[in-house]
Amino acid sequence: MTSMSVGQFHLVGISFSFCFSLMAAATAFFWINRGQVTPNFRATITITGLVTLIAAYNYFRMFQSWEGAYQVADGTVKATGVAFNGMFRYADWVATVPLLLVELILVMRLPREETISRATRLSVLAVLMIVLGYPGEVASATSTRWIFGILSMLPFLWIVYELYSGLGDAISKQPDDARGLVTTARNLTVYVWFFYPVVYFVGAVGLDGATATTIIQIGYTIADLLAKAAFGVLIYMIAVRKSEAEMRSGGTQPAAAG
Amino acid sequence: MTSMSVGQFHLVGISFSFCFSLMAAATAFFWINRGQVTPNFRATITITGLVTLIAAYNYFRMFQSWEGAYQVADGTVKATGVAFNGMFRYADWVATVPLLLVELILVMRLPREETISRATRLSVLAVLMIVLGYPGEVASATSTRWIFGILSMLPFLWIVYELYSGLGDAISKQPDDARGLVTTARNLTVYVWFFYPVVYFVGAVGLDGATATTIIQIGYTIADLLAKAAFGVLIYMIAVRKSEAEMRSGGTQPAAAG
Repeated sequence: MTSMSVGQFHLVGISFSFCFSLMAAATAFFWINRGQVTPNFRATITITGLVTLIAAYNYFRMFQSWEGAYQVADGTVKATGVAFNGMFRYADWVATVPLLLVELILVMRLPREETISRATRLSVLAVLMIVLGYPGEVASATSTRWIFGILSMLPFLWIVYELYSGLGDAISKQPDDARGLVTTARNLTVYVWFFYPVVYFVGAVGLDGATATTIIQIGYTIADLLAKAAFGVLIYMIAVRKSEAEMRSGGTQPAAAG
Repeated sequence: MTSMSVGQFHLVGISFSFCFSLMAAATAFFWINRGQVTPNFRATITITGLVTLIAAYNYFRMFQSWEGAYQVADGTVKATGVAFNGMFRYADWVATVPLLLVELILVMRLPREETISRATRLSVLAVLMIVLGYPGEVASATSTRWIFGILSMLPFLWIVYELYSGLGDAISKQPDDARGLVTTARNLTVYVWFFYPVVYFVGAVGLDGATATTIIQIGYTIADLLAKAAFGVLIYMIAVRKSEAEMRSGGTQPAAAG
C-alpha cells in the first residue's frame, strides 16, 4: 500500500477505537441487566455479552496493531514495517459467529433436541464459512479472493436457507409479543451478513491499495456493530418481552438469583 | 501551533486525567447503586453508566494522546511530531449523546410506542449534529468552521425544540416528587449543550493557536462532566424518587435481583 492519506489512516483507527468502546459498553449492558429476564433466558443474555466481549477484545487489539503499523510524519503516512494484523478479525469471527446463531436459537426456546441439533449444524457451517473465506482475504491475487469468496458463500447460503425455511416454522410459533422482534432479529442477521461478502468482494473488483483497505476495514466494523451489538439488543428485547409473557402466565418469577 | 506554554500543556493534560477519574467513578456509582431503584428503572441506570464508561475510555485515550503529542524540554513545549488525536472526542459524542437523550426519555416512563419513536428521532438528530460539526472542528479555514458549525446547529435546535415542546407535556405529567428534577435534567441538557457551540465557535473568532486549543479542550471537558456525570446523578435521583413513589403505591419491590 503506497498512498494512504492521513485522513484514511485516522478514520480506520478511530473506527476500531469507537467499535471497541461500543462493544465493551454493550457487554456491560447485557450482563448488568441480565437480572431483568427470567432464569429461562439468562444463559442467552450471558452469551449475548460473550459475543460483544470477544469482539471488544479483538477491536482493542486491532486498534493497537493499526496504530503500530503506520506513522504520520510531515503530513504523510508511512508504514513502520510491522504489518497490520488482520487475523484478529477472523479469530473474532470464528469465535463469535457460531455464538450469534446460538443466541438466536436459544432465545426461541425450541424443544431441547431441536435446539442442540440446529445449534450444532449452524455452528459448524459458520466456522466453515469463515475458515474458507480467510485464504481469499489475505491473497494478493484477485482470482484467489474470488475462488475462496465463492467457496465461503456455500455454507453462508446454507445458513440463510436454514434461517428462513427451518426456523420460519419456529418463528411463527413465537408468542405474539415477541414474534415481530424475532423476525427482525432473523432478518437483521441475514441482511447484515450479506453486507460482509459485499465488503469482501470490494477487494476483488479492481479497487486497490489504501482506498480498498479503508472501505474493507470500516465496512466490516459497521457490519460487526450491527451484527453483534445491535443484534444483541434485539435479543435482549425479545428475552424481556418473553419474560413478561412468562410472568403474566404465572410462570417463573423474575427476581431472585442473578 | 507554535507557542503553547508549559502551563497550558499541563492544564489540558491534567483536565483530561481529572475527567477520566470522575467519569470512571460515576460509572462505578451508578452500577453499584443500581439495586436502589425498582426494576422499572434499572435499565435506565445501566445506560447512565454506559455513557460515563464510554466517556472514561475516551478521556483515557485523549490523555495518552496529549502526553504523546508534546514534550517539555528546557522550559518550552515542543511537538513530538505525533499529532494529538482529537477524533476520540467526536467518537465519544457519537456514541454517548444519543444515549444521554435515551436516558432522559427512559426515566420518564412514557408509553412504549412514544418511547421508541422519540428515542429514535432524537438519536438520529444527535448523530447528525455531531457528524456535521466534525469537518468544521478539524478545518484550518475559519469560514469552514462557521459553515459546519451552523449546519450542526440545525439538528441541535430541533432537539432543543423537541425537549421543550414535545417533552413539555410529558414532564407536566410526571409525579409531583420528580417533576422538578425532570425539569432540571431537561434544562441542564439544554443549557450545557448550548455551551458546546460557544466553545466550538471560539475556534472561529480569531483567537488563535495555543490559547484557542486550551480554551476548547478545557471547555469541552467541563461541558462533558456536566452533561454526562452531573446529568447522570440527576437521572439517578429521579429514578430513586420515582421508585419510592412506586413502592408507596404498592408497586414493584426494589430489593431482590440486580
